[in-house]
This record gives sequence, C-alpha cells and structure tokens, in this order.
Amino acid sequence: MILSGKEVSAAVYSRIESQIASLSEKHSVTPGLAVVLVGEDPASQSYVNSKAKKCEKLGIYSEKHVLDTDTSQADVLALIDTLNNKPEINGILVQSPQPPQIDERAIIDAINPQKDVDCFHPVNVGKMLIGDEDGFVPCTPAGVMEILAHYEIETQGKHAVVLGRSNIVGKPMCALLSRKGKYANCTVTMCHSRTQNLNEICLQADIIIAATGIPEMVRGDMVKDDVVIIDVGINRVDDASDKRGYRLVGDVAFDEVEPKASAITPVPGGVGPMTIAMLLQNTIRAACQQNSIALESL
Amino acid sequence: MILSGKEVSAAVYSRIESQIASLSEKHSVTPGLAVVLVGEDPASQSYVNSKAKKCEKLGIYSEKHVLDTDTSQADVLALIDTLNNKPEINGILVQSPQPPQIDERAIIDAINPQKDVDCFHPVNVGKMLIGDEDGFVPCTPAGVMEILAHYEIETQGKHAVVLGRSNIVGKPMCALLSRKGKYANCTVTMCHSRTQNLNEICLQADIIIAATGIPEMVRGDMVKDDVVIIDVGINRVDDASDKRGYRLVGDVAFDEVEPKASAITPVPGGVGPMTIAMLLQNTIRAACQQNSIALESL
Repeated sequence: MILSGKEVSAAVYSRIESQIASLSEKHSVTPGLAVVLVGEDPASQSYVNSKAKKCEKLGIYSEKHVLDTDTSQADVLALIDTLNNKPEINGILVQSPQPPQIDERAIIDAINPQKDVDCFHPVNVGKMLIGDEDGFVPCTPAGVMEILAHYEIETQGKHAVVLGRSNIVGKPMCALLSRKGKYANCTVTMCHSRTQNLNEICLQADIIIAATGIPEMVRGDMVKDDVVIIDVGINRVDDASDKRGYRLVGDVAFDEVEPKASAITPVPGGVGPMTIAMLLQNTIRAACQQNSIALESL
Repeated sequence: MILSGKEVSAAVYSRIESQIASLSEKHSVTPGLAVVLVGEDPASQSYVNSKAKKCEKLGIYSEKHVLDTDTSQADVLALIDTLNNKPEINGILVQSPQPPQIDERAIIDAINPQKDVDCFHPVNVGKMLIGDEDGFVPCTPAGVMEILAHYEIETQGKHAVVLGRSNIVGKPMCALLSRKGKYANCTVTMCHSRTQNLNEICLQADIIIAATGIPEMVRGDMVKDDVVIIDVGINRVDDASDKRGYRLVGDVAFDEVEPKASAITPVPGGVGPMTIAMLLQNTIRAACQQNSIALESL
C-alpha cells in the first residue's frame, strides 16, 4: 500500500477548512500566521511563498516579513517582539536557514511559546516529551503521526526504528511513537551515525522512520517482509536524464523496499505535503488557545 | 565489576566541596537550596531531611518549608513566588507526592526555570532533549551518566536498552544516552509495558537501564554475557527473615544477572546515592549561572 501524503494532507485541509469556518461563524476569529524570512535563499523563498498561498486559499490571515540578508540580530528580535504582541497573529514561523550573524537559537527562544507553531521553543519541546498536550507537536513528526492514523497502521507494541537524531525529526518521532496513545505505544529504537550493526536492527523493525538525509540508504536487504516505511528524506541526486538535471529521492531505496513493504510513503508525495498542513493545523490550534476556545468544539 | 554509587557519589561530593570552597573564596557566593514539602508523608520527610543534612555538611545554605497537608494550591504558589525572588535561593525542589488538592504540574511550571534543579520544568526538559547545555539534567539520569563516566564504560555505538518510559527516568535516559558525547552516542531502544518480545530485545543489549518499578523483572536468561546493568529500581518486597519485615530489591534479579554482567549496580548502593549528589551539583550549577560564573572556572 502506498501511503499518500497528498491524500492525508487533503483530509487535514478539509478538517482545517471546517475548523476555520466554525471559528469565523461561532467566534468571529480568523487565525493568523506570520512567516519571517531573513535573506534570499531561493528554496526558503519558495517555501515561504507556498505557505502564504495556502493560507490565502484557506482563509488564514498571513503576513510575510522578508528581511535583508544583512539584517542584525537586534532587528530580527524587534520584529519577533512586535509579532508576539500583535493580536491578529497566532503563529510565528522563522524560516531556516538564517544568515551567520543571526543566532537561530536566540530567535526561537524569543518567540512567545504560545505562538511557536513550529514547536522549536524548548518549552514546547519539553511539553511534547513529558506528554503535556498544552503545547504543539513539530510539523513534520505530526505529519507522520497523521499518516499512521489516517491509514490505521497498527502501532501498539510494534518495534519502530527511527533513523536519525535531529531535533526537528528524529528526536520528536521517538517521543511521539513511544508515548501512550492509539497510534503510538511503540517500542522505539533510535539509530544514528554511530550505530553499530544497523542492518540487524532495521531487519527487526515493524516500522521504519527514515530521517537521515542520506539518499536511498535503506536498501531492500535491510528490511523484513511487511514492514511499514515512512520516508522523511527529500534528497536531490544528479540525473542527466531529468530536464532539471536532478531528481528527488528519499532516504529509502523505494524500488528495492516497496515490494517487501506492507505500506510505504513515496518521495515526493509522502511526508512532504504533510508539513505545511500540520503547520496550519498548529496555527488553528494556537488561535483556539489564544481565544480560549476548545479546538474539539469547532 | 560492581558499580558503586557510594564511590561515585563520594567523588561527586568531593568535587562539589571544592566548587563550594572556590565559590566562597573567589566570589563570596554561597549556593542555596529550598526544599518544599506539603504534607506528612514519612518517606518524603526522610528524603527532605537527608537533603537538608547533606547541604549543611557541605556548606550549602538550605531552607526547609514544611506545609500542612491541607495547604491550598494558592499558598504553595505564593511560597514558590517568594522563593523565585529570593536571591539566597538558587535551587527550588518541591517534594513529590503532593496531596490531591495540589496540581503538581502547575507548581512545577511556576518554578523559575533557572532555579529548577530537579529539571522537571518543560523548558529544562526541552533544553535537555535538544542538547542545549544551558539547562539542567534531571538528578537520577544525571547520576547514571556520572556512574558511566566514572567507571569509563564504553558507550560509543553500543546498544542501550532503557526499560520504562517515565518522565523522570526513562525518557531523559533515552535522550542522554543517544545524544552526542563521550559517554553517550548509544543506539537506544526504549521499552515499556506494551513492548512485545522484551526478552529478545534485552538479549541484544550491551547496556540495560532498568527503571520499571517491577521488582527483579530482569532475569538471568534475559541478558547476554558482558552486559552492563544499571538498576534504577528500589522496591520493597516482603521478607519475614528481615527484621524490618521487608528488603529492598531493584528491577534486576541481581543474583542471576551479576555472574553474566561485566558491570552492575547493586541495590541499595548503586544509583540511589547518586540522586542527592546530582541535586546538589545542579544547585551549584544554578548558583554559578545566577551569578554569571562559569562552573568550569571554579
């Protein structure tokens, strides 16, 4: 079975649309998202634009703040402060990467945790780890959990192997998969660059979450039959036969692994489309919290 | 080899003594710890008293606040506020368990994170997970890491299996063992009550951290030769032959496992003595941070 992020994100957007309508009709609230971009990285500009476009389409108020590459740390902090205090803005996202004069950690720490829809602020990371549902869940891991739930993947007591220990994917994935809950309660093994006998560990996995940034590192002989594969990687590899000169591949060798897998996300079209969907879901959650509205009541 | 918490905690206390002397001589700073106890739980009273005694012995200023069992949430919060603003106090610890009218989470959230020497506040939990060394490390897991370092246990790329997913031991142990660092970089598997084929997983472990609260659940046939065992459990089991009517056992069946293990902590005398030592180490760390002194400079 192909786990389609297009299908799941469409279901999330449809839920979001009805939540936005209900927020507007019952509470006269319009959720608002501010996206801050420092510099002119073309990939970042394209992400920021697609976020803004999606907001417009759904009826989320959005602001795009594009600052010069040489903007000072103090000026970025001043903008964050303005956005923290602006009632129309419920969520603030600062696009990475940022230029070298900017201390990304200090910028994230300056965001009001209630508006930290990326879930990068330590207080939200901590809440996620201890299972306090007041906080947010980071967007890409939240998207993975949404895929598991949408396709009703059995996770109870299953062995999930997470490849990669990044703060934005690997670590939160371990926290979310191992916690109590319907699409959780996994035994979780976290592997990384120092892991010995990786193949042996992967061969035991009922579920593999690949988030290493190494193109096609998970090969067919590393997985057992009926494994569930979630491929978070999006890597460019040179391909003269493609008119762009490259093609996108995941961290999993799809053609080798797919025949053995009971379920697998493709790249592109798997986890990728989920990230913005979950960002906007977090923005609605933030709007609810800031207006003392129960999300479930919408 | 027996991993003696008495030996390791003695080394920590000796380091602490020299740090306290240096803080006093070079900076005229005396670290201060406030311990808050609501109610009359005898075990809690005994913990609180041994903390106070240790502080006195080492030259740490300490305050013990014992409140009536029926103290209101508001009164506990008022005390926390006073302690947050008291310059002589660098660390605040609220003893668990608390009576039912008290919302423990709200009390912890009210502690100034810079004085949260237990590392229960979400912002410190988050900092620990993302590897921000500004925060604290929770005392019992910090004690385990200290034992591994003291005995120079090889951890790089080893497979550590953590049994138990509590917020105070299991989850932070996974975070600390899997992060980068000399006595870290483990591949970590987190197991819990829902784990299937636990025996098979334990048999692969190079290092087992047992923190389930189930007396002697790790049996001899569940571990491989040369395993390193850290037993965080302290359980009372009935024992008519003991004059107290009970004896203390860990989560590991010591007599069965010890012959196979290359290293093992006993119960009592293993992890137990480390917790207060690391609490006081955190208090000194807090005193340094609040006085803009580098701990390493002491």
